[in-house]
Amino acid sequence: MTVSGCVMCERVAGEGDLHIADLEVSRAYLNEDQFFPEGVFVVLRRHASELYELSPSERTALIQDVNRVAAAFARVFRPAKRNDELLGNQVPHIHWHLIPRVAGDPDPRWPVWRLEHAPARLPAGELRERIGAIREALATDG
Amino acid sequence: MTVSGCVMCERVAGEGDLHIADLEVSRAYLNEDQFFPEGVFVVLRRHASELYELSPSERTALIQDVNRVAAAFARVFRPAKRNDELLGNQVPHIHWHLIPRVAGDPDPRWPVWRLEHAPARLPAGELRERIGAIREALATDG
Repeated sequence: MTVSGCVMCERVAGEGDLHIADLEVSRAYLNEDQFFPEGVFVVLRRHASELYELSPSERTALIQDVNRVAAAFARVFRPAKRNDELLGNQVPHIHWHLIPRVAGDPDPRWPVWRLEHAPARLPAGELRERIGAIREALATDG
Repeated sequence: MTVSGCVMCERVAGEGDLHIADLEVSRAYLNEDQFFPEGVFVVLRRHASELYELSPSERTALIQDVNRVAAAFARVFRPAKRNDELLGNQVPHIHWHLIPRVAGDPDPRWPVWRLEHAPARLPAGELRERIGAIREALATDG
């Protein structure tokens, strides 16, 4: 099911430059704002707003998808901590913000939302490189 | 396993005034700061910092625990949106922040972390009442 005018429905309908990988019930995309490096969205393929709109097996698949990306990152980027957030205040289509908190983080004791900043968009070459590194990490699963 | 000096290990070892309910692999407690009303912590019983430190079945049980609390809330408090966040920047023991975003929310388009505020602690009577309402909601599962 897709919902007309939902930007996450539009996003998961295609790949685009930010697409990283397809998972069981979701697709992973790099966050175009890389102010917090390697931030990723894990977007549910179908439209739903809240965890309790999913069947138990969909919920299980979704948390295993999120975990797969989180674990891949940890092996490669070794963040000090991770933040995995299901918010949707502006776009109520289930998408997890997966945010590794790495060395040099400007506000390590708090969630990332307190720092006003201009979006940090990467040049195309760096974008491809970062997506490639994450794909490689995902390929070494298990 | 408990870790000496971990405040979440200490919390899940006892009930205390904020305890709401025991779930499969976690315990639910009211957030003592009720500036965002009905905010709850779902705290993993054992000490672990990240999703990928759990077995697949523990992860599944944990997301079903989180969902059970989220669904109970939704039936009773009918929030406009929910935020379910796994952070741990200051206390790296898995605990979810379950935050219903209700009518009158002071910053509905953003996560709750941007608003500096003094903690809103409830008088004992109101605290018991709020915990009672959440327990009642949980008791009407299924």
